[in-house]
Amino acid sequence: MSLASERNDIELDEKIKEQHRIDSLNLLLYMMLLITTVLTVWMFKHRRMRYMHETGLALVFGLVVGALIRYTSVPSAISHVEVKAVSHPTYNGTLPPDYLWYHMKRKRDPVGPLVENRTYAYRLTGEVEDLTGNQFAQQATFDPEIFFNIILPPIIFNAGYSLKRKFFFRNLGSILCFAFIGTTISAFVIGGVQYTFGLLFTYKPSLLDCLYFGALISATDPVTILAIFNDLHVDVNLYALVFGESVLNDAVAIVLVTAIENYAKLYATAADGFEAIAFLKAIGLFFYVFCSSFLLGSVMGCATALLTKFTHIRDFPLLESSLFLLMSYSSFLIAEAADLTGIVAVLFCGICQAHYTYNNLSDEARVRTKDFFELINFLTENFIFSYIGVSLFTFPKHQWDFAFIGCAFISLFVGRLLNIYPLSWLLNLRRNPKIPLNFQHMMFLAGLRGAIAFALAIRNTYSVGRQTILTATSIIVAVTVVYGGLTTQLLLWLGIPVGGEAEEDETTGLNQMQRTRPVYSTMDARPNATGARDNPEKARLVRLWSNFDTAFMKPLLTNARPTLLETLPMCCHPLARLLTSTQQLTQDTSNKYDDDGEGFLEGDDASLHGAGGDSGSIHSNGRQIGGGAPDDGDLGTGSASGYQQAPPAAAAARPTRVTLRGHGHGENL
Amino acid sequence: MSLASERNDIELDEKIKEQHRIDSLNLLLYMMLLITTVLTVWMFKHRRMRYMHETGLALVFGLVVGALIRYTSVPSAISHVEVKAVSHPTYNGTLPPDYLWYHMKRKRDPVGPLVENRTYAYRLTGEVEDLTGNQFAQQATFDPEIFFNIILPPIIFNAGYSLKRKFFFRNLGSILCFAFIGTTISAFVIGGVQYTFGLLFTYKPSLLDCLYFGALISATDPVTILAIFNDLHVDVNLYALVFGESVLNDAVAIVLVTAIENYAKLYATAADGFEAIAFLKAIGLFFYVFCSSFLLGSVMGCATALLTKFTHIRDFPLLESSLFLLMSYSSFLIAEAADLTGIVAVLFCGICQAHYTYNNLSDEARVRTKDFFELINFLTENFIFSYIGVSLFTFPKHQWDFAFIGCAFISLFVGRLLNIYPLSWLLNLRRNPKIPLNFQHMMFLAGLRGAIAFALAIRNTYSVGRQTILTATSIIVAVTVVYGGLTTQLLLWLGIPVGGEAEEDETTGLNQMQRTRPVYSTMDARPNATGARDNPEKARLVRLWSNFDTAFMKPLLTNARPTLLETLPMCCHPLARLLTSTQQLTQDTSNKYDDDGEGFLEGDDASLHGAGGDSGSIHSNGRQIGGGAPDDGDLGTGSASGYQQAPPAAAAARPTRVTLRGHGHGENL
Repeated sequence: MSLASERNDIELDEKIKEQHRIDSLNLLLYMMLLITTVLTVWMFKHRRMRYMHETGLALVFGLVVGALIRYTSVPSAISHVEVKAVSHPTYNGTLPPDYLWYHMKRKRDPVGPLVENRTYAYRLTGEVEDLTGNQFAQQATFDPEIFFNIILPPIIFNAGYSLKRKFFFRNLGSILCFAFIGTTISAFVIGGVQYTFGLLFTYKPSLLDCLYFGALISATDPVTILAIFNDLHVDVNLYALVFGESVLNDAVAIVLVTAIENYAKLYATAADGFEAIAFLKAIGLFFYVFCSSFLLGSVMGCATALLTKFTHIRDFPLLESSLFLLMSYSSFLIAEAADLTGIVAVLFCGICQAHYTYNNLSDEARVRTKDFFELINFLTENFIFSYIGVSLFTFPKHQWDFAFIGCAFISLFVGRLLNIYPLSWLLNLRRNPKIPLNFQHMMFLAGLRGAIAFALAIRNTYSVGRQTILTATSIIVAVTVVYGGLTTQLLLWLGIPVGGEAEEDETTGLNQMQRTRPVYSTMDARPNATGARDNPEKARLVRLWSNFDTAFMKPLLTNARPTLLETLPMCCHPLARLLTSTQQLTQDTSNKYDDDGEGFLEGDDASLHGAGGDSGSIHSNGRQIGGGAPDDGDLGTGSASGYQQAPPAAAAARPTRVTLRGHGHGENL
Repeated sequence: MSLASERNDIELDEKIKEQHRIDSLNLLLYMMLLITTVLTVWMFKHRRMRYMHETGLALVFGLVVGALIRYTSVPSAISHVEVKAVSHPTYNGTLPPDYLWYHMKRKRDPVGPLVENRTYAYRLTGEVEDLTGNQFAQQATFDPEIFFNIILPPIIFNAGYSLKRKFFFRNLGSILCFAFIGTTISAFVIGGVQYTFGLLFTYKPSLLDCLYFGALISATDPVTILAIFNDLHVDVNLYALVFGESVLNDAVAIVLVTAIENYAKLYATAADGFEAIAFLKAIGLFFYVFCSSFLLGSVMGCATALLTKFTHIRDFPLLESSLFLLMSYSSFLIAEAADLTGIVAVLFCGICQAHYTYNNLSDEARVRTKDFFELINFLTENFIFSYIGVSLFTFPKHQWDFAFIGCAFISLFVGRLLNIYPLSWLLNLRRNPKIPLNFQHMMFLAGLRGAIAFALAIRNTYSVGRQTILTATSIIVAVTVVYGGLTTQLLLWLGIPVGGEAEEDETTGLNQMQRTRPVYSTMDARPNATGARDNPEKARLVRLWSNFDTAFMKPLLTNARPTLLETLPMCCHPLARLLTSTQQLTQDTSNKYDDDGEGFLEGDDASLHGAGGDSGSIHSNGRQIGGGAPDDGDLGTGSASGYQQAPPAAAAARPTRVTLRGHGHGENL
C-alpha cells in the first residue's frame, strides 16, 4: 500500500472522526436540554409552580436552542456532487434506487499523474428540496425511525403498565366509545374541514393527505393535563376518562393512519369506479390490524406471565427483568415486522404485564421494571418534546403553509367538538352517573397533541404534502403543550372539584387530604355501583370477562390464588394440576409476595385484587376461595363491596418502602 | 397534484414501510437471540453449570443465527445504479463527497410520455467491495456509531460505578503498572510481531495498521472469567488485579488507538525525516488526551455530587435519577465532542459518581441507578456479543486473511507473555505480598478480548486493512470468550484457592462460606497491611490523596460527616459554612441514610467508609470527627484497623432488603 493511498485513508479517518464529533455534539445538545429541563422542573416543583409541565419546558428550551442554531451558526462544509446514471442504466424502476455507486478517480500520488478508480456506495436519504442549510443544523435531527423503533415503545408501554386499572375498567364503555367512535369522527371531520378550507384558500392539499393529517392529529396526548390532575387529585372518573381516552385513541389513530395509507394504495391500484370496494377493504384492514395487534400484544404479555410462572427465573431478578423487557419490546417488533401496529401491541402487552406477569415477579424485579420504565418514560418523553422544539427550526424539510396551519387549528376545534359533546350526550342516555357538562368541557379542552402525532408526522416526509403536515403538527403540539399549563385555571373556571377521592394518595397527599376533605364530584359519589346495574347489557359482557379472568386466566397465568384446581371442574383436574405451580399451592404461607403487589400498583387496583381473587384475596380468604361469584367481579361492574373492602387491606399490607416510591409516581403522572 | 404523482408517493410510502419492516425484523432477530440467551443462562444457573458464560452463549447463538441467515436466505431486491458526476463537477476534493444529488426522470403518467425531473439526495455509506449480499443480511448490521455512542458508554460506566473500590485501591500501584506499561508493551509487541510475520508471509499489512491492531486488541475484557471468579469467591486480590487491569487497560488501549491515528496523521503531513517529532507529538497527545478525559470525567462526577448536595432534588427521586443519568452520559459526549476519549471520561465519571454522588442520593435513586445500570449493562453486553456472532457471517465487509488471523493468535500470546511476567517480576521486587506464580499464570490466561476491541475495530472499516483487522478481532473475541468457560478448570490446575475472603458474600454466599472455610491465598492473609509499609514512597502519595479526599473532597462534595467546618482551618469558616449543607450538619440524627449506603455498595467499601470519615463514620463517631488522621486513611495504604473494624458495622447496619439485592450482583459480575 503506497504512502499516498495511506494518506487518503487517513483523510477518510479524519472525515469519519469529524462526523462522529458532530454526532456527539448533536446528542450532547439534547442532553444539555434535558439537564436544563430537569433542573428547571425541580425548581418549579420545589416552589410549587404548576403553570408549566416538564414537557412544555423541554419544548420551550428546544425552541430557544433551535432558533439559536438556526440563526447564529455558520454554514459548514457539506459537500455534494450532482450525478447522473452512467450511459446504460440497468435499473428501470420508476422509483429512485436504494443505492448509488459512484465511480471516482482519485489522485494516487500528490505529485504524479497517477489516478486510481474507487467506487463508493451512497444510500437514499430523500428528495432534495433545499440543501443550503448547514451541517450542524441538519445533524440536530435524527432518523425518524429512531422515534418509532426506540423512543415511542417505552412511552406507550409505560402507559399500559402504569394504567390505573380500576377506574379505567369502571369507565371502560365510555372510554372505548370515545376512543373508537370519537377518534374516527375526529379524524374524518378534521380531514374534511381541512380539505374544504383547501378548496377555499390557495393551498391545495390532496384529500388523502387531509385525511392522513386528520387521523394522525387525532392522537391526543394530554400529559400536561394529567400531571396537573394527578397533583390536584381531580375527580378519579374524569381522570380515567381523559387518560383512558388518550391511551386508546393513540392506538386507534395509528391504525386509522395505516388504514388510510392502505386505502390510498388500494384506491391507486383499483380499476376506476371501485372506490367503494377499496373503502370497504380498508375498513376490513382497519379491524384486522387492530385486532391482530391487540391479540399479539396480549399473547406476548400472557407468554411472559407463563414463563415467569413456570420457571424459577424469579430466583435471578436480573434475568427476570431482562426477560420482561425483551418480551415486551419483542411484542412491538413482531407486530411491526408483521405489518401490524407495534404501538397497539405494546400497549396491550403493557396492560397484560401489569395484570398478570407483575404478580409473578420477584419483589426486586417489580421495583426494577417499574423504576426502569418510569425513568425511561420520563427521559424519552422530554427528549421528544425537546426535539420538537429544536427541529421546528432546524429540520430541513419544513413547509410553512400558514393557511394550512391556521385552518388546522379551526378543524381541530371542530373535530374535538363533534367528538366529545355528541358522544357524551349519547353516552349520557344510558350512563347513569352522567358525564356532567363541566367534565365534558374539560375533556373537550384536554385534546392536547403530543409525541404520537409528531412521531407519525415525521415518519414520512418525502413529499411536500407530508412536509406540510409535519410542520403543522409541530406547531400544534407546541401550542397545545404550552397551553396545557392553564389547566389549573381551567379547572377553577369550570368549577371542577379537586382533591377528590384520595384513595391512591395516602403516600404523597396526606396533608392534602387533611386540607381538602374528599369532595365527590357532581357525578354520584359511588358512581358505577348503581350505574352498572342500570346498564345490564354492558355489565353482563364485562362481568362475563371478569369471571373468566378470575376463574381461568389469573389461575392459569399467575401465582395467585385460587388455583385452577379450585376453579376448574373435577374432570379437568389432571390438567389443572399440571398448570398449577408449587408456589401457587404454597401461596398462603408466603405473605411477603402480595404486600408489594398492592403497594406497587399504586394501591388503585386493590379492589380488583380484593374482589377478583388476586393476591389480595389472602386478606379475605374465606370469601375468596370459591372464586368468581358473580357479584364479586369488579372489572367495570363496580361492585361497591370490593371497592370498600380493599383499602384497609391495602393500607395494612403496605410496607414503609412504598412511602418513598410514592414520590416517584406523584411526579411522573 | 396529479393521480400519477400521488401514485408515486404511495409507492415511496411502500418503500419506506418495507424498509421499516426490515429494520424491525432485524431488531427482532437480536431480541430473540437475547431472549434465548436469558432463558439458557437461567437454565445453566439453575443447574449450576459454569462452563459457559452468558456472553459466550450470546455469541454462540449469534454465530448459529448468522450462519443461518447467510446460507439460507434468498437475496432480495436491493437496487443500485452506477453514476458519474455530471459534466462540470464543482467538487474538487480528493475524498468522496458527503452527498450525491441524483437527477432522475420519472414517468409522470403511466400512459403518457410525460416525465418529471426529480432530484434525490444520497449519503455516503462507504466503499463498494461486494454488494452481492442480500438485503436482510446487510440489515442485520448496525451503524458502528451506535456501538460507540449508545452501547459502550453504559458498559464502561457500570464498570466504574460498580467497582469494588477497596480492593482496587489496595492494589492500585500494580493495576496502574499493568494498565499503562503493560498495555503499551502489549500493543507494540503485537503490532511488531504482526508486522514481522507480515514480511514473512504473503500478506502485507502496513506498519500503522499493525500498530493500530496491536493497540485495539490490547483492550482485555475478561467478563467471563470475572463472573466465575465472583461465583467461586476466588482470592480478592487476584480479582482486583484482573478486574482493575481490564477496566483501566480499556481506557489506555483506546487512547493508544487515538495516539496511533494521530501519529499517522502527523507522520503523513510531516516533511521527510521528521518522524521523530511526529512520534514525540503523538506521545504528548496520548498524555493530553488521557489526562484531559480523566479530568473531564472526574469534574462531571463532582459536578453531579455538588448538584445533588446543594439542591433538594433528592425530594424527587425520578428527577434525581434522571439528572444522574444525563450528567454521566454528558461526560461521555463532551469528551467525544472535544476530541478526547469518552470512554475514559465516562469510566472516571462512574468512579466519582460511586465515590461522591452516591452518598448524596436518596434511597430510591440509589436503588434505581444501580438497578438501571446493571440491567442496561447486562442487555448491552449480551447484545454486543450476539452481534459479534451474527456479524461474523453477515457483515458485508469482512476480509478473511487467515495468515493474519493465525499470526494474530501467536502475537497475542507473545504480547500477553511480555506484559504479565516481566511486569510481575518487576512489581514483586518492591511489592511485599508478592504476586505468586500461579496468579501470574491466571492473569496471563485472563487476557480475553471482548466488546471494546470489537467496537474499536468496527468503527472504521473503510479500507481493506481495517476490514482485515475487524475480521481478526471478531474471531479472536469469539475464540477467547468461549475458551473463558474453562476458567474453573484453570483455577483447579493452577491450584488457586477458591472460596477465599468472603467478606462481600454475606448476602449470597452464606452456605458457601460454611461449606468452604475462608482460605487465604498464598499471598499474606492481610496482604497490604504490611505491604504498604514496605512501600513508603507509593504509600505516601496514596495517603496524601486519601487525606485530601477525607479532609476536603468528601466534606465538600457529599452530605457525609465530617463537614468542612470541622476539617478546614478556622480562617476559612465563612466559606466552609457556605459549602456545608443543612443536611450535612444534621446528619447524625438521620440514620436511615447511611445504612443503605453501605448495604448497596456491596459492603466492600465499608472499610473506606469506616476509616475515611464517610457516612459509615457515624458508627464510630468519636474516632472519626477529627477526620483524616494519617493512619486512618485506607485508600491503598491498607490500614488493617479500618479493614477489621468496618465489617461488624456494615453487618449491623445492613437492612434485610440487601439480601434480595445480593442476587442481582451475584449474577451480574
